[in-house]
Amino acid sequence: MVVLYHCVSARSFRPLWMLEELGAPYELRMLPFPPRLHQRGYLEVNPLGTIPFLIDGDTRMTESAAICQYLAERFDPQNIKGLAVRPNEPGFGPWLNGLHQGEATLTFPQTIVLRYGHFEPDERKLPQAAEDYTKWFLSRLRWIDAVLQDNEFLCAGRFTAADISVAYALMLAGQLGLQAQMPDAVNAYWARLQEREGFRRALAAQHEAALAQGISPQAAAID
Amino acid sequence: MVVLYHCVSARSFRPLWMLEELGAPYELRMLPFPPRLHQRGYLEVNPLGTIPFLIDGDTRMTESAAICQYLAERFDPQNIKGLAVRPNEPGFGPWLNGLHQGEATLTFPQTIVLRYGHFEPDERKLPQAAEDYTKWFLSRLRWIDAVLQDNEFLCAGRFTAADISVAYALMLAGQLGLQAQMPDAVNAYWARLQEREGFRRALAAQHEAALAQGISPQAAAID
Repeated sequence: MVVLYHCVSARSFRPLWMLEELGAPYELRMLPFPPRLHQRGYLEVNPLGTIPFLIDGDTRMTESAAICQYLAERFDPQNIKGLAVRPNEPGFGPWLNGLHQGEATLTFPQTIVLRYGHFEPDERKLPQAAEDYTKWFLSRLRWIDAVLQDNEFLCAGRFTAADISVAYALMLAGQLGLQAQMPDAVNAYWARLQEREGFRRALAAQHEAALAQGISPQAAAID
Repeated sequence: MVVLYHCVSARSFRPLWMLEELGAPYELRMLPFPPRLHQRGYLEVNPLGTIPFLIDGDTRMTESAAICQYLAERFDPQNIKGLAVRPNEPGFGPWLNGLHQGEATLTFPQTIVLRYGHFEPDERKLPQAAEDYTKWFLSRLRWIDAVLQDNEFLCAGRFTAADISVAYALMLAGQLGLQAQMPDAVNAYWARLQEREGFRRALAAQHEAALAQGISPQAAAID
């Protein structure tokens, strides 16, 4: 069975949501945030100390969007659920782009905002950096905003792993209070995605696992 | 023919290197850096104003590591050159991980260093942020350092697109003067990769295209 290391509502929510959409069996190991401070033994599991961390046989992975693509092949090689987009489909390029964009372009800038606007002690807070990367993030929504003018999903005319990758960035933006500054089409898209059964099951799964494993079920955060 | 928008030695070097490894035909359109300031018309091509930008028929892509995966399928669907790793190979997970890690984990932090340590005018420089994300980047090299103790390449026992993704982060680290702080195995790996014909052809291609198109052939940078 695959093992996923997870902190509540951190990036590792992407593979958790993916697993729920796939209906795949998994073991969820909850960690306090940030694990490298609060659970030092975790560094022996993942030397980077970051989450997510996925173990599947001999395979070890640390990148949340990469894990989503991996899980699609692992648990649905015929792509019956359509969460992957195949090279012979016109949406293949946009699918790969969305998988990467969700993390590299839409999530990382928000971690700067979190760090220098919230996590650091006051004497190390950097309001300028928090403001710069809030703007940076909001300006990068232009791409999906344009796509969502005419499309329910990011690519291929259906819900895919690319939506999971991007949606996590929107979830984080909500936690940061940025929703009012986000384009209407983007907010409507995020509202639609939250209606999905798979999303709700993933929320419930992390809540139950947190309680069962003695971790606060409040949203952690990411760094 | 695919069209790649590129600034000298920016992230778009990944797809350029990939195209050279594949021996694929392409048109390279050089831009001054940053294009959204120095070539405003570019926003009509790519509304984000970022590079890379790839056009292939109806496909439009903005994420450099995603483009590498796309190009492998587009120009070598049988994977004869082995730049992709297939789902039935043990290196599939590590391959996807490397593609993402190169950008999201190893390149983005360096852009914070560049911005607040170099690009911003003095009154907006933030030495603390530059130092924080230098440390952050160096600590995230632990993963590939461990892999490279026993392996010539990141995955699958051969050179793949994952090496291109990660190698670009090392190229940028060199520009930032971080090489002396990088682990020996990582520096040796990067030195080996620079010996590749495909890498050298990509360097030559951007140099020639820059001169031909009236762009400075000096390394630009990324944001």
